[in-house]
Amino acid sequence: MSLPEDTSLPNHFELLATDGAARTGRLTTPHGVVRTPAFMPVGTAGAMKGIHWREVRDAGADIVLGNTYHLMLRPGAERIAALGGLQRFTGWGGPMLTDSGGFQVMSLSELRKLTENAVTFRSHIDGTKIELSPERAIEVQRLLGSDIAMQLDECVRLPAGRDDIERAMQLSLRWAARCRRAFETAPAGYMLFGIVQGGDVPSLRETSVRGLVEIGFHGYAIGGLAVGEPQAVMLAMIEATAPVLPADRPRYLMGVGTPDDLLESVKRGIDMFDCVLPTRNGRHGVAFTRFGPVNLRNARHADDPRPLDEESPWPAARSYSRAYLHHLVKAGETLGAMLLSEINIAYYQQLMAGMRGAIAAGTFAQFYAETRANWSRGDIAAR
Amino acid sequence: MSLPEDTSLPNHFELLATDGAARTGRLTTPHGVVRTPAFMPVGTAGAMKGIHWREVRDAGADIVLGNTYHLMLRPGAERIAALGGLQRFTGWGGPMLTDSGGFQVMSLSELRKLTENAVTFRSHIDGTKIELSPERAIEVQRLLGSDIAMQLDECVRLPAGRDDIERAMQLSLRWAARCRRAFETAPAGYMLFGIVQGGDVPSLRETSVRGLVEIGFHGYAIGGLAVGEPQAVMLAMIEATAPVLPADRPRYLMGVGTPDDLLESVKRGIDMFDCVLPTRNGRHGVAFTRFGPVNLRNARHADDPRPLDEESPWPAARSYSRAYLHHLVKAGETLGAMLLSEINIAYYQQLMAGMRGAIAAGTFAQFYAETRANWSRGDIAAR
Repeated sequence: MSLPEDTSLPNHFELLATDGAARTGRLTTPHGVVRTPAFMPVGTAGAMKGIHWREVRDAGADIVLGNTYHLMLRPGAERIAALGGLQRFTGWGGPMLTDSGGFQVMSLSELRKLTENAVTFRSHIDGTKIELSPERAIEVQRLLGSDIAMQLDECVRLPAGRDDIERAMQLSLRWAARCRRAFETAPAGYMLFGIVQGGDVPSLRETSVRGLVEIGFHGYAIGGLAVGEPQAVMLAMIEATAPVLPADRPRYLMGVGTPDDLLESVKRGIDMFDCVLPTRNGRHGVAFTRFGPVNLRNARHADDPRPLDEESPWPAARSYSRAYLHHLVKAGETLGAMLLSEINIAYYQQLMAGMRGAIAAGTFAQFYAETRANWSRGDIAAR
Repeated sequence: MSLPEDTSLPNHFELLATDGAARTGRLTTPHGVVRTPAFMPVGTAGAMKGIHWREVRDAGADIVLGNTYHLMLRPGAERIAALGGLQRFTGWGGPMLTDSGGFQVMSLSELRKLTENAVTFRSHIDGTKIELSPERAIEVQRLLGSDIAMQLDECVRLPAGRDDIERAMQLSLRWAARCRRAFETAPAGYMLFGIVQGGDVPSLRETSVRGLVEIGFHGYAIGGLAVGEPQAVMLAMIEATAPVLPADRPRYLMGVGTPDDLLESVKRGIDMFDCVLPTRNGRHGVAFTRFGPVNLRNARHADDPRPLDEESPWPAARSYSRAYLHHLVKAGETLGAMLLSEINIAYYQQLMAGMRGAIAAGTFAQFYAETRANWSRGDIAAR
């Protein structure tokens, strides 16, 4: 089933070990090395919500994601280029991946119009009419200085009819080819990923992979998932896609997910993830721990002097009491969102580090079972 | 003019040097030493808005202020006591001063009723009817574990008629005596400050001081200022009050102020301050620097790669570009408020440290002139 290796673009990914379908490796970017499997925290508009960059680094993140749609509207790609690129502008300094902007155009902007050539939309900030073609999506990402740029694609929300899914997948393939051409002059070391589409139809997913590999990319993303479908559908699509992707190239599952999603997807051969869940849940009073999610709004924590997890490697998770975190959340104090967001980012990174170590040691099955057992056990009993 | 020294309560303040009317010293509390003149950042409900406690400490703050009104309503004083007191509950660990709750009762709560015995009000959170007497104000602050408790007083908003000012001042004196009695059983090392009232009437201020000194406190606050009057009125009231306060006790000007207010008040003999201005202005896009306030919303910063102040001792003030801070503020990113709040707290602490050093060296007049000259010079020119 496996296709011939794509040799048309240099490979910056080194596969270090596999354990079943699970993989661990290192991806070398112009701004540093990314250990995989990697979770990329999302710094939408050039900032993580409620977290300092040094905390993102300290938590163990090697790479973060920026949203092209937000950044091109404000402060503008040309401005960021003049200020030295996104890594320098933000002060993060490390590797950054940017999406193409297409997904947010579909979800956030008004009056969008999709043609063979481009998607046209009005800015949700000031109503300006903007055209985003595959060529412009690449130009913008090169102005931003992204270590990893993504092709422009069309993402269909599920459930959708097969015809619509196929049409969008084929358009995405044609746009993939245009993005690849637009990226030809990019400096060495910078990468472009193609995006597999095909909704929940395995045969369309496979067609998409074949088309993308023929064009040739530095890495491959699986798009069009985490858009409302059940987890089982998502996992089935990974199973239909991962085995036909070139084994030597990084695989990125876009917009995923819960800790459970990460564990299941790594098990099926995924190397990279991004999601707003850890920070969004943090802002809503939910912490992720070894023992699953903990809702700090719950009154059971009001008088509890114990930390979220006394064995956590992350200081805030083992030093602040549940009573204090509960109070901050109830009082709407910014510090509550700040602490829970960093605690969640740290837990996600801890989970990725655990998976990397287990795959390298050939003990992924054991790690998987222990992690699941802890989640099933649930949070410590109330006092 | 100076009154006999009050010897009825142990003195934890050591006056190290004076320069004109300006003073520098050290106040020893159960949770650590406070270098004066000191600026106390305000952690209203047990948290600084948008700043981690370690940043408050790193910025140079020795002591922070908590609001009794907020804390008694949520999470509750008895709960905080059971959790080990405010310093432990919050994780701050260092010295904390709490106000009496009276000021916020007047400004935030509904259906308040003032009698000789107490002020009764409804919680702005859930409408619960609560009575705050001088005795309860002390009980609550002792439950919180405040290093420095404040007497309950009545603060009149200016302008006000002389009769009203005098009535409130006399009531505050009677409440001062009741607070002093309620504090008798407090453990050694904990402190109670009396509050000078008397509005903008110098003779009433002096009467208030005499009454308070007769009762005897660990320190003395000047209240009822920074309530809408011009700076000149405030400074005149300090000049009428400071000289008659016991020279060996700390003097705290409540709710003040701008960097300019701090410089002028220290010059007139004030040792301690608190104000929400550095964090509130930070949340509104205004940074304080050596060269005065800088409004980061201004479009002049949009393409400016320079930091706020390349010579600042505070990393965020010399590393992030004005362009990035401008972007964060315009985009409403939490990180913008976080960075500007810590930058402002750090600038305030830098100003206090500068004054302490200058007073100790006998060069306060020079420091005063240089600081003013920098402020007058204004921000660096736009590019």
